[in-house]
Amino acid sequence: MTHDDSGQEPVSDFVAVIPAGGIGSRLWPLSQPHRPKFLIDLLGSGTTLIQDTVARLAPVAGETLVVTGERHAPAVAQQLPDLEASALLTEPSPRDSMAAIALAAAVIEHRHGERIMGSFAADHVIPDADAFRETVRTAIAAARTGKVVTIGIEPTGPSSAFGYIKAGAPLPEVPGVFQVEAFTEKPEEDTAARMLAAGGYTWNAGMFVVSTTVLLNHLATLQPTLEAGVREIAAAWDGPDRADVLTRVWPTLTKIAIDHAIAEPVAASGGVATLPGSFEWHDVGDFDSLAHLLEADASGTLASQRTAAVAAVDSESPVVIGGTKPVAVVGIDDAVIVETDEAILVTRRSVAQRVKDVRFP
Amino acid sequence: MTHDDSGQEPVSDFVAVIPAGGIGSRLWPLSQPHRPKFLIDLLGSGTTLIQDTVARLAPVAGETLVVTGERHAPAVAQQLPDLEASALLTEPSPRDSMAAIALAAAVIEHRHGERIMGSFAADHVIPDADAFRETVRTAIAAARTGKVVTIGIEPTGPSSAFGYIKAGAPLPEVPGVFQVEAFTEKPEEDTAARMLAAGGYTWNAGMFVVSTTVLLNHLATLQPTLEAGVREIAAAWDGPDRADVLTRVWPTLTKIAIDHAIAEPVAASGGVATLPGSFEWHDVGDFDSLAHLLEADASGTLASQRTAAVAAVDSESPVVIGGTKPVAVVGIDDAVIVETDEAILVTRRSVAQRVKDVRFP
Repeated sequence: MTHDDSGQEPVSDFVAVIPAGGIGSRLWPLSQPHRPKFLIDLLGSGTTLIQDTVARLAPVAGETLVVTGERHAPAVAQQLPDLEASALLTEPSPRDSMAAIALAAAVIEHRHGERIMGSFAADHVIPDADAFRETVRTAIAAARTGKVVTIGIEPTGPSSAFGYIKAGAPLPEVPGVFQVEAFTEKPEEDTAARMLAAGGYTWNAGMFVVSTTVLLNHLATLQPTLEAGVREIAAAWDGPDRADVLTRVWPTLTKIAIDHAIAEPVAASGGVATLPGSFEWHDVGDFDSLAHLLEADASGTLASQRTAAVAAVDSESPVVIGGTKPVAVVGIDDAVIVETDEAILVTRRSVAQRVKDVRFP
Repeated sequence: MTHDDSGQEPVSDFVAVIPAGGIGSRLWPLSQPHRPKFLIDLLGSGTTLIQDTVARLAPVAGETLVVTGERHAPAVAQQLPDLEASALLTEPSPRDSMAAIALAAAVIEHRHGERIMGSFAADHVIPDADAFRETVRTAIAAARTGKVVTIGIEPTGPSSAFGYIKAGAPLPEVPGVFQVEAFTEKPEEDTAARMLAAGGYTWNAGMFVVSTTVLLNHLATLQPTLEAGVREIAAAWDGPDRADVLTRVWPTLTKIAIDHAIAEPVAASGGVATLPGSFEWHDVGDFDSLAHLLEADASGTLASQRTAAVAAVDSESPVVIGGTKPVAVVGIDDAVIVETDEAILVTRRSVAQRVKDVRFP
């Protein structure tokens, strides 16, 4: 059992659930369908994002489950050698976040009875793990009151890349936690700016902490087929019929995001609480975001995962990732050059979002 | 003996001299000190520029000499297997164009007596070889009148990259040939525009056709030490003392360009004639010039010396040269991406001149 730097024990009835999905197509060619973002050492730190995520949660969690697709299960198992086989839940096909999280909830409850679970994406970057865990501990306390608790991210700007959480009245039982008034879809930038000016909004990073029983009860009301389906699968999960039941039931589960299935409707009836995360957080959705996390050398070059030299002529702050040859950039500011074994990408930070549109003839 | 497509015989007393020097530093990393421009297959045609140059001159020349530096002599010999060893004049060190051309003149005259020689750079691109040779034949006729004859290139725009030749009165003996009034240094672009508007100006591409005796006589007057030096070296060239004489005399030769040593002063006294080349000509000094010679595919991509795919997102007409991996360009118009075994260059056509400033830390 890992101890927190803060000296606190893990929360024994808290289960960290890590849905490991999504390609990260704006980070091509680093991330690709066969090598999604969570499986790569995006920061060149020596560990992959899913390894970082598991390590970040271990000191606060009594148990950790990873939910991933069949294609990536072997790589996940290889990257997480300490993860027991029973802690890796493999989906036969992607059926969106609600099915993945509900499956985890049902398996946990079938194995142990009620637990507090927390769902955290496998590919986010959170440099201060202690601050993150402090927030998680408060979220766990709030979840014990029966709320679905979501951790909001303090906006650093009027981003149109995230949905927003609108906080309302304080939750009397747990200081620093608030009722959620509403979730909003990803807004236009000017709408986002008005929201930030109004105050009380945080980014929705998809971090949910909730009792398994509370979650499954909400699901029974709002998505009864899905709830019955995951309970049937969970009952068979640790026995000889898992494959048969999965084959029969999994494809029937409704494809829906947890935000639409649970968070939004339950918030409307006052059942969701939120607390702002008091930690630095990065989605690292594209090469511009990634560049913000790299350290410039004396010449302003941001290089990662390479040792060969970079020369810049009339080119501010080139970003060069991967590759084994010297690279020269002439007359392009904020150039981004990425080389993997498979391909070379050349772009600029300001248009890095469009990398997702790359299609080869 | 090669015959011209025109059916004309080579001119038996005409010796083509090809000074093979210059790195082409704006074409890095294709061209580099160890692999200068004239040694590379710049157009991806399957032949190098010096091979093209020799092949272009063979049908008009009774003999061909190549003058190059020690470092590149083995590669030149390897690329030109039909060139006899005696036709490769190797300079111990670079001493500018006058020494190289004067050495060739002196060696020719010592071997054969007076000949007409024509000096043509090893790294220019001239797609229509027949038209080129027609011009050379006229230049040879003009050189027989005792003139130093320079072939001017019809300007395609007010370039500041070339010196200009100002034509004067027609030469009575040879139709289409004119007295040279003056040579001008590379002008500013607005000066060049005024010159083009005035008319009578061509680009100086360094193509000189002249009797060896006429050239050496001018040299005896204008650069007597140089003339005496190359005559001494030429007398020893085909004997046992070549190395000794070269070691002693070569380093004493004045470093000067043929333009300053001969063309400008002789023009001032009426001894230079010119004719406009009626052929397409390219110096191919940088990647923008090179891109003009590449053919775009259906998507507008200009690819050369590679087979892997190119994907462009919001990027007009990328130029991709060399390399073995798929390349994607996102949000950069007129991008230039060049990969060799040694390095990768990323630039844009409009700033491609600055490639010469690349320095690695």
